[in-house]
Amino acid sequence: MEAKTVSQSKVEIAQVMMPEHANPAGNVHGGNLLKLADQAGAIVAARHTHSNVVTASVDRFDFISPAYIGNLVFIKASMNYVSRTSMEVGVRIEAECLRTGTHTHIGSAYLNFVALDKDDKPTEVPGLIPETETEINRYEEAKKRREIRLQLVKPHRHRQQACIIRLEKLK
Amino acid sequence: MEAKTVSQSKVEIAQVMMPEHANPAGNVHGGNLLKLADQAGAIVAARHTHSNVVTASVDRFDFISPAYIGNLVFIKASMNYVSRTSMEVGVRIEAECLRTGTHTHIGSAYLNFVALDKDDKPTEVPGLIPETETEINRYEEAKKRREIRLQLVKPHRHRQQACIIRLEKLK
Amino acid sequence: MEAKTVSQSKVEIAQVMMPEHANPAGNVHGGNLLKLADQAGAIVAARHTHSNVVTASVDRFDFISPAYIGNLVFIKASMNYVSRTSMEVGVRIEAECLRTGTHTHIGSAYLNFVALDKDDKPTEVPGLIPETETEINRYEEAKKRREIRLQLVKPHRHRQQACIIRLEKLK
Amino acid sequence: MEAKTVSQSKVEIAQVMMPEHANPAGNVHGGNLLKLADQAGAIVAARHTHSNVVTASVDRFDFISPAYIGNLVFIKASMNYVSRTSMEVGVRIEAECLRTGTHTHIGSAYLNFVALDKDDKPTEVPGLIPETETEINRYEEAKKRREIRLQLVKPHRHRQQACIIRLEKLK
Amino acid sequence: MEAKTVSQSKVEIAQVMMPEHANPAGNVHGGNLLKLADQAGAIVAARHTHSNVVTASVDRFDFISPAYIGNLVFIKASMNYVSRTSMEVGVRIEAECLRTGTHTHIGSAYLNFVALDKDDKPTEVPGLIPETETEINRYEEAKKRREIRLQLVKPHRHRQQACIIRLEKLK
Amino acid sequence: MEAKTVSQSKVEIAQVMMPEHANPAGNVHGGNLLKLADQAGAIVAARHTHSNVVTASVDRFDFISPAYIGNLVFIKASMNYVSRTSMEVGVRIEAECLRTGTHTHIGSAYLNFVALDKDDKPTEVPGLIPETETEINRYEEAKKRREIRLQLVKPHRHRQQACIIRLEKLK
Repeated sequence: MEAKTVSQSKVEIAQVMMPEHANPAGNVHGGNLLKLADQAGAIVAARHTHSNVVTASVDRFDFISPAYIGNLVFIKASMNYVSRTSMEVGVRIEAECLRTGTHTHIGSAYLNFVALDKDDKPTEVPGLIPETETEINRYEEAKKRREIRLQLVKPHRHRQQACIIRLEKLK
Repeated sequence: MEAKTVSQSKVEIAQVMMPEHANPAGNVHGGNLLKLADQAGAIVAARHTHSNVVTASVDRFDFISPAYIGNLVFIKASMNYVSRTSMEVGVRIEAECLRTGTHTHIGSAYLNFVALDKDDKPTEVPGLIPETETEINRYEEAKKRREIRLQLVKPHRHRQQACIIRLEKLK
Repeated sequence: MEAKTVSQSKVEIAQVMMPEHANPAGNVHGGNLLKLADQAGAIVAARHTHSNVVTASVDRFDFISPAYIGNLVFIKASMNYVSRTSMEVGVRIEAECLRTGTHTHIGSAYLNFVALDKDDKPTEVPGLIPETETEINRYEEAKKRREIRLQLVKPHRHRQQACIIRLEKLK
Repeated sequence: MEAKTVSQSKVEIAQVMMPEHANPAGNVHGGNLLKLADQAGAIVAARHTHSNVVTASVDRFDFISPAYIGNLVFIKASMNYVSRTSMEVGVRIEAECLRTGTHTHIGSAYLNFVALDKDDKPTEVPGLIPETETEINRYEEAKKRREIRLQLVKPHRHRQQACIIRLEKLK
Repeated sequence: MEAKTVSQSKVEIAQVMMPEHANPAGNVHGGNLLKLADQAGAIVAARHTHSNVVTASVDRFDFISPAYIGNLVFIKASMNYVSRTSMEVGVRIEAECLRTGTHTHIGSAYLNFVALDKDDKPTEVPGLIPETETEINRYEEAKKRREIRLQLVKPHRHRQQACIIRLEKLK
Repeated sequence: MEAKTVSQSKVEIAQVMMPEHANPAGNVHGGNLLKLADQAGAIVAARHTHSNVVTASVDRFDFISPAYIGNLVFIKASMNYVSRTSMEVGVRIEAECLRTGTHTHIGSAYLNFVALDKDDKPTEVPGLIPETETEINRYEEAKKRREIRLQLVKPHRHRQQACIIRLEKLK
């Protein structure tokens, strides 16, 4: 399993915020930004491993500014760090006002993903090669965050006993 | 502004997971659980303050088990701690398999909210009275988390320059 | 205010059932059919009155057969009866299997609507002229249903005290 | 098959009303409340039987007050009555204004569900043990409603001929 | 395979435009009208062939007028022309203002569909019998459009290499 | 009003296709791709003009390959040509299989947009400066398409008489 560079998996997704994304106050619902950040992070993890991935945790998610309906929202995500079976992805959300072209920093997040094998057991992931200075800094900082996290949170995961739902066969 | 107890604002929301909540693997999309946790947290903050609130950050969100389509998902949220203008809400997500009645712990999270006045400036919030032993423990732990957070994260918020979207008047 | 015939307001709406309309069993979620019946009924009431209308009650809704994802669903709705301020609309739901062309009766319902004036007070509605034998029968049956209903249900409506939500102004 | 008490299956689901739930007038679309009532009723029926259930009919649904975007809507549902294969669930919808804490009665409904076996044939359901005075009253009233209903409505259900939709295999 | 008339497959679908269909300007999002036109066209193609169909192209789609939230939108679609394996469907979108009863022409489109056999290969479709003068004119015009299109566009279709997504088995 | 280059307005939006985007056959619904193409085109037109824009027409939309649920779909859009008040945007849709990294060409389209002033009248747009050879070729081809289009289609646009919908004021 060959190590990969950061640029081999990084991604930028973009979406216009429509009225269906609004909260009762008329701005973009924060929950929708969490959902988009999770999606972008999962893409990076899937590109890095070419396997199934699941979100293990959000380490931090900081909202900096509200986003508005009509904004073009960009979610930039790249791999910060990998351990044996888990990966930290950094996410940055920006919004472009299509009327003025101005970009605003909306929020930043660190999310952890785990790669799964065919039996849904955590599986080893390729190593990460940080190349630029920024990438090396992010790698070191993510490593420290991981150490703090391992002290604070006892990582435990289990699987819900399968809950059978018959998918009606249409013969 | 009178202090309030934890039980005055705590909430439990519940929703059946439908196919529209699925990820490509057929399970509940983690992003939808983040969205529901954010919603439940915002209810607690709104009940505590009776004012507008915004999500300031997710301090942690740990996924413990996948949730399945057809599960009845419960999101339990209660106020852990309040400082002058911000509040930490603890969220616990559980899933009930309607076929067996079994409950599974799906995930847990800490989210921070800020109360806003009429001009969208952070505004003071009522104090919190933890009553039970659990509530007192959560209060103390949230206080420690806040101290660690203030060391790690420079809290800064700004507002995107208003991005004019003419809401078409239907005269 | 001139009386109107049944055919002046009757409507048929139609929609293909997509995966987003499924319940966990993979069929069309009954709740979505209730929503479509309500929508079709409201169109009839709006066409008859050319004013704002609200759903007052569902008198009956009988499900006859499941509908499948991929079905073309038709909702046929027509005015059965009008009293001074309220109207009974009859709704029939059918599904066409696009593979075979077969039509199936999915369900039938009676819904009551009230017309509202500018101040959201119930307002008088135009009379109804049933023309065909079927229309006259429906008129008589709806009248009987109304009498039974007025015995069983004490019609009372009130308005939730306005719940202020500031719709963020984007200047 | 052991009889169950009302409290073994009763449920309260709760959801914040978002702009995507609005009707063109800006209030909560009645059809969405019908959908939520149906969902809550189906949970009660599934908890009582631990089997597949389908909505057979809505006996009544009375709207009492409009609900607003931003309201926290509660849907309380409990088993009123069971016959051999069908069940009546009572549903009560309330809305909480998060600004004031005021609760409003939005609507009430009676829905009937049928339990299905593996071949989608109606199957026997456990008996119901009403315990409190309220539960006993509801049991008696539901029994009377059932008798009236059996006089008014010829219960007939059939199944749409299976409509083959090939779920594209991704090999 | 017997030829069919235009009226054997033509369809009219109708839907009320809700706030979830709005663009940031508060009108109906053009993309939603494109989606509805595609849906109506696919119904016509499925009714004509009773087989799986896919959209091959949009030849033209002209927007004439904006549609408003609260409008009842009608999408009328009928078969214009068939060649060996492909079909041109004409689509006309109208909107009814429920307050006044006025109908407005919103847009018109020509879409091409291809019928697929069990192996997803293009398959022969029944001939078309235009009966009225309008139908004969549309047939001739569609034939000309097809000739121009074959000059301008090199029709080529391929299939994305299957992208395996394990649909989690719930055993 | 200064002319702009193609690169000043071009955009790439990206979105993971979720089960809610599926058609009954389990692939991505073509209508959703039309909607995304329209959205991407509108972004380019808004960036070029910094004003309100509306979709005037789809000149062509060719589907080349199906897209699958789980695919990361990219919509690349750039300005091909501008006349006095209208603009042609070229759109290319690609899908990435996250399991293999393979990219597939899903479809291509030409859409026309019109810029609107404060009174919703068409307004003059900045000129376009094609720089690269590809951009110059696209400019020339779009110009020819426009000439053919003006022969085939009599461009006429009108506005639906405003259809009053009272947006309930929550005082």
